[in-house]
Amino acid sequence: ESRKEGTTATGFPLADLSVRKVLRESARDKTIFLHGQVNSASGDGTDAVVILEKTPFREENISELLKKHTKLQLQMSNDIYSTYHLYLPPELNEIKTTVVYPATEKHLQKYLRREVYLIQETGADYETITLPFIESQSFSIQWVYNILEKKAEADRIIYENPDPTDGFVLIPDLKWDRKQLDDLYLIAICHCRGIKSLRDLTAEHLPLLKNISKEGKEAIVKRFGVSGAQLRVYLHYQPSYYHLHVHFTALSYDAPGSSVERAHLLSDVIDNLELDSGYYRKRTLTFALRADEPLLKKFQEAGRV
Amino acid sequence: ESRKEGTTATGFPLADLSVRKVLRESARDKTIFLHGQVNSASGDGTDAVVILEKTPFREENISELLKKHTKLQLQMSNDIYSTYHLYLPPELNEIKTTVVYPATEKHLQKYLRREVYLIQETGADYETITLPFIESQSFSIQWVYNILEKKAEADRIIYENPDPTDGFVLIPDLKWDRKQLDDLYLIAICHCRGIKSLRDLTAEHLPLLKNISKEGKEAIVKRFGVSGAQLRVYLHYQPSYYHLHVHFTALSYDAPGSSVERAHLLSDVIDNLELDSGYYRKRTLTFALRADEPLLKKFQEAGRV
Repeated sequence: ESRKEGTTATGFPLADLSVRKVLRESARDKTIFLHGQVNSASGDGTDAVVILEKTPFREENISELLKKHTKLQLQMSNDIYSTYHLYLPPELNEIKTTVVYPATEKHLQKYLRREVYLIQETGADYETITLPFIESQSFSIQWVYNILEKKAEADRIIYENPDPTDGFVLIPDLKWDRKQLDDLYLIAICHCRGIKSLRDLTAEHLPLLKNISKEGKEAIVKRFGVSGAQLRVYLHYQPSYYHLHVHFTALSYDAPGSSVERAHLLSDVIDNLELDSGYYRKRTLTFALRADEPLLKKFQEAGRV
Repeated sequence: ESRKEGTTATGFPLADLSVRKVLRESARDKTIFLHGQVNSASGDGTDAVVILEKTPFREENISELLKKHTKLQLQMSNDIYSTYHLYLPPELNEIKTTVVYPATEKHLQKYLRREVYLIQETGADYETITLPFIESQSFSIQWVYNILEKKAEADRIIYENPDPTDGFVLIPDLKWDRKQLDDLYLIAICHCRGIKSLRDLTAEHLPLLKNISKEGKEAIVKRFGVSGAQLRVYLHYQPSYYHLHVHFTALSYDAPGSSVERAHLLSDVIDNLELDSGYYRKRTLTFALRADEPLLKKFQEAGRV
C-alpha cells in the first residue's frame, strides 16, 4: 500500500510538514533548504530539515521528455526567438529530496545561510590573530597522515613522489565521483609536515611547488587524458585544513572554492616567490569568512573588520 | 483548442523534434542546450535550438508543493538522514524553454560548448601576440564613450567622480536587474581613455584605482546598503572590452567571471603596483580562451599553446 502511485511511499509525512523558515536557497543551483515542523498526530511539532533540489537533465531521456510533455505554454515570441513553460509528467521530472529528521538546533544552524565578510589580513594580522587562532584549535589532520603513510585510501593514489621534502601524493578529491571528467578534481598533498598554508611558503619550497605543478599535470594527462592547459591548479587561502595541499580541477568546471577571493594559482605563487622569497609572509591576503566562523570573531575583537 | 490542457499550446511542434546533438549542458545549473530538427509535415527537417532550464523554487509556493506532491519515493535511509525522489504535479514544476527556430549554423555554433585552454601570457607574449591582435580588431567601444559623455544611460549612473584623469562613472551592470541585492553587480568605468587593461597599469594609475576602490564602495553602501566588506571588487584579464573598468559584485554571489583564472582583486592590483610599478607589464598573466576565440589561434600560431 505504501508504495502505491500517488501516495507517500515512505514514513516521512511530507504533506504534514509546515514550513517555518527558508534556511537558504540558490536560484542558480535550483535548490532550497527548509526548516519545517511535522504536525501530524505522531509528529508533535518535531523539527526537520528538508532540502529540495531539481535534478539535472539526462541526455538519455531527453527524447522521451519532449514527446511526453503535457503542455507547452507560450510566454513570449519575437522573430525567431520564443520562450515557453513546458510541463512534464511527474515521473520525468523528479526532485531530489534530502531529509534530516528529527533535526536538532545544530542541524538548523548548519544549513542556515550566513552573511559573508571579506577580511584583508596583513602579515602582522596573520602573526597576531590568525596564527594564534590556528594553534589554539585542535584541528585533527590524522586523516592526512593516514593517506601519506598508506594507512588509508592507498588504493586511490594516482601518483606519488616519495621524497620527504619535495615529494607529494596525488589523490582524487572526495567530491569527485570519477564517473565523468567534467568535474575532475584531484588534490596533491605534500609529504613535508609543518607547512600550514600559503603564508608559510618561501623560496625554499620552490622545488616542491614545481614538482607538484609538473608531475601532477603529467600524472593527470597520463591517467585521465586531460592536459595541463585544461586544468586549474591552485591553493586555497584560508585552506580547510592546515597541511599544504594543491587543488587540480577541470578548467571548464566551475569548481566550488575557485573564486578569486579564495584561490591562488600555483603558477602565480611560484612567480611571486621567485620575485621575493618573503612575498607571502608580508603580503596582505584577502579571504571571506562566514558570520558563524570563529576566526571572524577574532578579527572583530581586534577591530580589523 | 490550441490552449487546451494536455496539448501543445503553441505553433512550435516540440513533440516532433528529433534531437541531433546536445550542444551544451550543465548539471549544476540544470540546463541543457539541444540542436534539434523539426520533422513534422510542415517542418522538413528545419534546424532549431531548444534550451531547457529547470526553474528555481519560489518561496511562496513551497507549502502548496509539499502538500500536493504525487509521490515520495525513498532512495536511502541512514539514522536521521534519508533521501527521496519527490514527484510533483506538472503545473508546480514547469521548465523554462527557449526556442530559436528556424536556427542557422551560426546559432548552432553560438550555443555549442567549446574546449577551454589556459594561456600563460608573458610580458613578451603580450607585446608580440596580444597587443597586435587587440590593435588589429576594430572592437567598438562607442557605447562606453556614450555612457561617459551622458549620451546614453545617464539616468542609470549611481555615482561619478568627474576628474578626467582620476575619475570614473559607477553604473549597474546590465546583467543585474536591481530587483534584489543577492546578485548585485556594478561597473566602474574610468574617464581616462587609452588604458586598455590591467597590462597598461603602472604606479601613475594608483590615484585612479584608489578613488574607484574608496568612492565606489562608499557610493554602494549609501545607495544599496551593502558594505565594502560584502563586495568583491576586481578587474578581468582578458577584459571583454579594452577600456579600463572595475567589477563590483556581492561577495555572496557566485558571479560569472569571478574565478581565479580571470579575476584580479583591485586590492591586490594596488598592492602589486605599490611594490613594483612595472609589475603588470612584466608579469606572466594566466587566462582561459575558448577554442573558437581568434586570440587562441594567434597563441597557437606562435607555438605558445
